[in-house]
Amino acid sequence: MANPVLVEVTRGTMVESRHRGTVVAVDGAGKVLFSAGAIDHLVFPRSACKAMQALPLVESGAADHYGFGDRELALACSSHNGEPEHADLADAMLARAGRSVEDLECGAHWSFQQETLIRQARAMDKPTALHNNCSGKHAGFVCTCAHAGEPVAGYVGYDHPLQREIRATMESLTGALITHDVCGVDGCSIPTYAVPLQGLAHGFAKMATGEGLAPERAKAARRLMAACMAEPFYVAGTRRLCTEIMALAPGRIFAKTGAEGVFCAALPQEGIAIALKCEDGTTRAAEAMVAATLARFLRHDDTLFAALMAKANHTMRNWNGIAVGDVRVTQALMD
Amino acid sequence: MANPVLVEVTRGTMVESRHRGTVVAVDGAGKVLFSAGAIDHLVFPRSACKAMQALPLVESGAADHYGFGDRELALACSSHNGEPEHADLADAMLARAGRSVEDLECGAHWSFQQETLIRQARAMDKPTALHNNCSGKHAGFVCTCAHAGEPVAGYVGYDHPLQREIRATMESLTGALITHDVCGVDGCSIPTYAVPLQGLAHGFAKMATGEGLAPERAKAARRLMAACMAEPFYVAGTRRLCTEIMALAPGRIFAKTGAEGVFCAALPQEGIAIALKCEDGTTRAAEAMVAATLARFLRHDDTLFAALMAKANHTMRNWNGIAVGDVRVTQALMD
Repeated sequence: MANPVLVEVTRGTMVESRHRGTVVAVDGAGKVLFSAGAIDHLVFPRSACKAMQALPLVESGAADHYGFGDRELALACSSHNGEPEHADLADAMLARAGRSVEDLECGAHWSFQQETLIRQARAMDKPTALHNNCSGKHAGFVCTCAHAGEPVAGYVGYDHPLQREIRATMESLTGALITHDVCGVDGCSIPTYAVPLQGLAHGFAKMATGEGLAPERAKAARRLMAACMAEPFYVAGTRRLCTEIMALAPGRIFAKTGAEGVFCAALPQEGIAIALKCEDGTTRAAEAMVAATLARFLRHDDTLFAALMAKANHTMRNWNGIAVGDVRVTQALMD
Repeated sequence: MANPVLVEVTRGTMVESRHRGTVVAVDGAGKVLFSAGAIDHLVFPRSACKAMQALPLVESGAADHYGFGDRELALACSSHNGEPEHADLADAMLARAGRSVEDLECGAHWSFQQETLIRQARAMDKPTALHNNCSGKHAGFVCTCAHAGEPVAGYVGYDHPLQREIRATMESLTGALITHDVCGVDGCSIPTYAVPLQGLAHGFAKMATGEGLAPERAKAARRLMAACMAEPFYVAGTRRLCTEIMALAPGRIFAKTGAEGVFCAALPQEGIAIALKCEDGTTRAAEAMVAATLARFLRHDDTLFAALMAKANHTMRNWNGIAVGDVRVTQALMD
């Protein structure tokens, strides 16, 4: 059974491209409230699970030890644009632990966001690891290791104590058994583990509600999600959907993208979390899917519903500003 | 019936993303030699049919009148990077007709190719219409109108004589009836017409073989394809698949990409043309599909077959150079 078409891209009066995918929304007990496609299939969460990967930073006491507030915790959960504010804050986090960019093992890349890339090209010869979209997560990793007295060098390795702890955290939250077989290497060189989409959603629902979590974990999860919702610019940046969606309703929506068309989101007040994967890995479609799926649980708030649906369904314009077509979600997401 | 998965993207030992699509290869008589998916469905050729759109430039005598050689004709069929050589040649083409960048109606955009964009950002405040990936096609349009004594202003309009002529040319080559219903507006503001994928392939097979074409059209088609194959840098540019594939075997392979995952290609010596569409519009998958489909008709040339399959199946590396997965075509394209 092929996954359903969830997003269409039109041109003129015709559908030009189609995106299939899987979406699941669950409550804190793991009950499925909505689904489309094969939600038991394994999906690499990629960067969409950074808030899970940041739990050791808070649970270990490192975040408090180094005096990290909402901005630092948001950056630890971020896939940012590499804007000056992002790079500077990652640098400052490392400095709190007496560390520097030299300790980052994520590699360097130019910003994925065009306006930022243009500014970077004019301001620097080449980007550093601080500009890597994962530098905040890695700065958090370095601080966690430094605080615990673990070796910092090699912190990205599968057998490093930090990655073992993250693996155990992921297993506990998602309910999935994580073995070498489901392990890949992420863009920033840390391990990434394929888990069932439904388990991924349940993990975020546990974080959003605290259901089924020990008090310390529930508190750390709430703190990380609240930090992201309070400082959405530090989770992504200028013209980025994660930032824009969270800014629509401060404190009410958590949303985090991952490479290859993954998105995780949560509505803490409603006690719901969402995980989705665009089959072909395309960001434009994953963005439409997450906006529409969040909207379906916010029908009671006309303004917020409309604002989210405007992110899901939007007109594309060409270089002369002429409307050429639309990105739109299909009925499969709205019924 | 869903279109088949033709390209997989792996991570570790698992498939992370999947691309579905339709592919058809035909001979000059239109006989289907290979197909996958629904090849009767309508597809917007987008920029993949630029060589068809350039026929009036040659057939009208404008190309000869302005002394255009292989480079100018290749640029008229191109979707280029906006590198200095591309922008300068588009400018020179316009100057031959006493025209300038002011006459271009394609709009302006930064290069889609990162290295070129970085150089552009350092060298200019903002790009002009000469840097638009379609500027060569539009320069050809302006020259065609100027030579014919038609108004240049408004040459992108559906009812402009040039677009009427292109529409008639597309109908004749593809065998499709083109009405307002199948018309969209392209990124560069000219009309684009959805035609059956099989008809699109047949149009390119006619151009590659001359079969079924009047002598003047056959000659013009051969000249345009030969120009692209002789000057592949001017069809795309640095690190671009069209350029790289045509450079593998000078004079033997024609290949042209289009937006939203379209590719057209031809093997003039074998008398075969190919048209394909990745269902989700992703370039990485369309590139793998075209390389593998060309390869299947070149099994008699071990070196060329291997070089094309290396374009179809390739390893992805992260920012630290670590191999994280592969882009690979499925058996559906190789059987």
